[in-house]
Amino acid sequence: MEPRPAAPRPRLCDSLGADQTPSASTLNAARAEARPAGRRAPAVAAVLPAGGSGERMGVPTPKQFCPVLERPLISYTLQALERVCWIKDIVVAVTGENMEAMKGIIQKYQHQRISLVEAGVTRHRSIFNGLKALAGDQPDSKLSKPEVVIIHDAVRPFVEEDVLLKVVTAAKEYGAAGAIRPLVSTVISPSADGCLDHSLERARHRASEMPQAFLFDVIYEAYQQCSDYDLEFGTECLQLALKYGHIKAKLVEGSPDLWKVTYKRDLYAAESIIKERISQHICLVMDTKDENHVGHRLEEVLKDELNHVKVTSRLPCHTGRDLDQIMSEQCYSYVCVNVMTSDFEEIRKLVDMLEESNLSILYPVVVISVYFLDYKSVPFDQKMENLMQIREYAKEVKKRNILLCGLLIYYPQDEHKLQESLRQGATIIATLIKERNSGLVGQLLVA
Amino acid sequence: MEPRPAAPRPRLCDSLGADQTPSASTLNAARAEARPAGRRAPAVAAVLPAGGSGERMGVPTPKQFCPVLERPLISYTLQALERVCWIKDIVVAVTGENMEAMKGIIQKYQHQRISLVEAGVTRHRSIFNGLKALAGDQPDSKLSKPEVVIIHDAVRPFVEEDVLLKVVTAAKEYGAAGAIRPLVSTVISPSADGCLDHSLERARHRASEMPQAFLFDVIYEAYQQCSDYDLEFGTECLQLALKYGHIKAKLVEGSPDLWKVTYKRDLYAAESIIKERISQHICLVMDTKDENHVGHRLEEVLKDELNHVKVTSRLPCHTGRDLDQIMSEQCYSYVCVNVMTSDFEEIRKLVDMLEESNLSILYPVVVISVYFLDYKSVPFDQKMENLMQIREYAKEVKKRNILLCGLLIYYPQDEHKLQESLRQGATIIATLIKERNSGLVGQLLVA
Repeated sequence: MEPRPAAPRPRLCDSLGADQTPSASTLNAARAEARPAGRRAPAVAAVLPAGGSGERMGVPTPKQFCPVLERPLISYTLQALERVCWIKDIVVAVTGENMEAMKGIIQKYQHQRISLVEAGVTRHRSIFNGLKALAGDQPDSKLSKPEVVIIHDAVRPFVEEDVLLKVVTAAKEYGAAGAIRPLVSTVISPSADGCLDHSLERARHRASEMPQAFLFDVIYEAYQQCSDYDLEFGTECLQLALKYGHIKAKLVEGSPDLWKVTYKRDLYAAESIIKERISQHICLVMDTKDENHVGHRLEEVLKDELNHVKVTSRLPCHTGRDLDQIMSEQCYSYVCVNVMTSDFEEIRKLVDMLEESNLSILYPVVVISVYFLDYKSVPFDQKMENLMQIREYAKEVKKRNILLCGLLIYYPQDEHKLQESLRQGATIIATLIKERNSGLVGQLLVA
Repeated sequence: MEPRPAAPRPRLCDSLGADQTPSASTLNAARAEARPAGRRAPAVAAVLPAGGSGERMGVPTPKQFCPVLERPLISYTLQALERVCWIKDIVVAVTGENMEAMKGIIQKYQHQRISLVEAGVTRHRSIFNGLKALAGDQPDSKLSKPEVVIIHDAVRPFVEEDVLLKVVTAAKEYGAAGAIRPLVSTVISPSADGCLDHSLERARHRASEMPQAFLFDVIYEAYQQCSDYDLEFGTECLQLALKYGHIKAKLVEGSPDLWKVTYKRDLYAAESIIKERISQHICLVMDTKDENHVGHRLEEVLKDELNHVKVTSRLPCHTGRDLDQIMSEQCYSYVCVNVMTSDFEEIRKLVDMLEESNLSILYPVVVISVYFLDYKSVPFDQKMENLMQIREYAKEVKKRNILLCGLLIYYPQDEHKLQESLRQGATIIATLIKERNSGLVGQLLVA
């Protein structure tokens, strides 16, 4: 087992022993999408207030720390920001009691370019603390003042580079900019006696979402000038910039992805969306070049069943290097078709490669080991030996966030029956990949 | 196999051959919660506009017809309304092209007290059509005019009796009432040039949600008086009642459950919530009274692992009638612990009872058949015979929406190892119940 690269430690603002900025990892570089040509983005940093208590969620853990596929929600948001290579620094404001947990998250998931500051008692105070750290007027701060600062929420994990670029570009032109969305419900104004006073015309109003971006000097000065009342009860940064910065705040239409994880149901939705996203590419690792082999028929059936999913096949680890490429393309689902052997050698090699790729740090990787057998004529015992082996080995690799299962596909002489068992095999593969549940690790399923 | 009771056919307004009102089924009667004593609810009907195209969802199927656990979303909403015994009639407005599909849904899921009308081109026109059918001034209408009418959305499936009663009671007092929720995002008003004009104070505004309720005469007259512009572009029924009915519209704080399924992520959330709700009760069917038996130890481990779930145990079908009671309590998860036998007799009896109970009409029922075996000393072959049997039988019962799996739990002499395999067994049971995925039906899992 290769040693993992040392995880970067977060820089703590106001702390002498802080690290130097770590260079972006290879994985980050691969993820970073190229900036559209012809636009030169200014020096950009981001501030992420993450001091909230999540009272609306109805759970004791603040929502930004709630696990989604066993990883805290805020880690997905950090990932979304850090894959944008032109965001130089990401300042996260967390409460003192969550500081150690946050450091642990940064280390475990190898987040880059993160600095931590202490959250204030309100959202505005947390943002202000983040801005102060970026202003460069703090003693020992390693951060330098950006031209533009993005403000985002820790609980909006699906933000895309596209909308970040739009708000930054508009902020450079106008001084401030923020994403908006159409209203889902009609907004009304109640009267003092709890009756309807009037309803607002839906077409004339929008929901103000995140991200927002500001010329740093505009928003920093606005925060310095604003009243305690603003800091305590305000919610809208654009409004502060308008009121104290005397600039125009441009509104940018955002996508539905920008939604904020607010209630428990939103955590469920986030988990389903993430599962769906990482299940869009299945790689079959096949130890034969024979195009007539049943493994290729399984591939065809899979393509047919999962018509929104990219299904590719590759030769196994020892014969080609193109598995490396698949892994660098962020494929999180592998079906290892064992044609020539019934031992675990190929699986072990694949698992080793996956581990080297660091893929399973961020998401659980599913590996399904497929065997074909006419078990109505061959005795089962020998395969059951395999079962016992796969259970022990699966337990071991589960620790590395790799979910291994076995799948025995009935391979009869009868063509019609074979087609049926291939189809059932594809259904089982689709289920295991879609659900990505660690509870079934090590099982030998039968199609 | 017992024949199922004939499914009721929906009454079609304006149709001569319409059925008589079917009496509520036994299941509905069991589900109906008693009305709080001391309040006499007026004659109430409900109108459900369901003519929307679901363009925000990004899928071709209108959202109210999208499947959630393989059942259309609107069926959950109808279920939520029809279990409230004091709602006499439910009028659903659907477009002509979805009329046949809607009739099929009512028949398949045995919905009661439903009448169908043709939807208009806008939401307001659909509601108006529903009101016209209830007004009793249509030729051949079997519906009678209610005192109060509830207006609800087809895409808000989690509405509770509690809030329905609150809006109805308030409507009786004020003339109109509607559920509201706090705003999730700040609402802003854009200027003509796409910049921020002003942001609204969040504390002074609310999101207007559904259900709403009205004195029938108030809302019907409002619709008769209102302009084409109102019918085309309006969204808010409370506003119409205020404007044309000259009454006050009372606002009632609703729970987070009232949210509207709007985007694809909301469908994911709905599915997760429904899965969670129907997995709150697990019944172990145990063919021994011996309290020291390992089956009872499995029960303890399950209670320990799933501490938010109610775990009960019962004797099998032939020795007691209390399984009937469990089924009438809407338990959708059964673990059949086969201590004395290794055949399928108990499972078959349980499946037959489930079928008679009609439980699986609305939700997939999970049945897990558990066997204990020291498979390190006993040969596997015999159990594999079972595997083959369970696969075939599971395929058959899947057609009835019953998801059957086998689970073999290793039963070694060593106490520590036994505890470990019981714990793994409990994890597998929890996974199968939670995921409720038909793709793994018929598998024999090993703990």
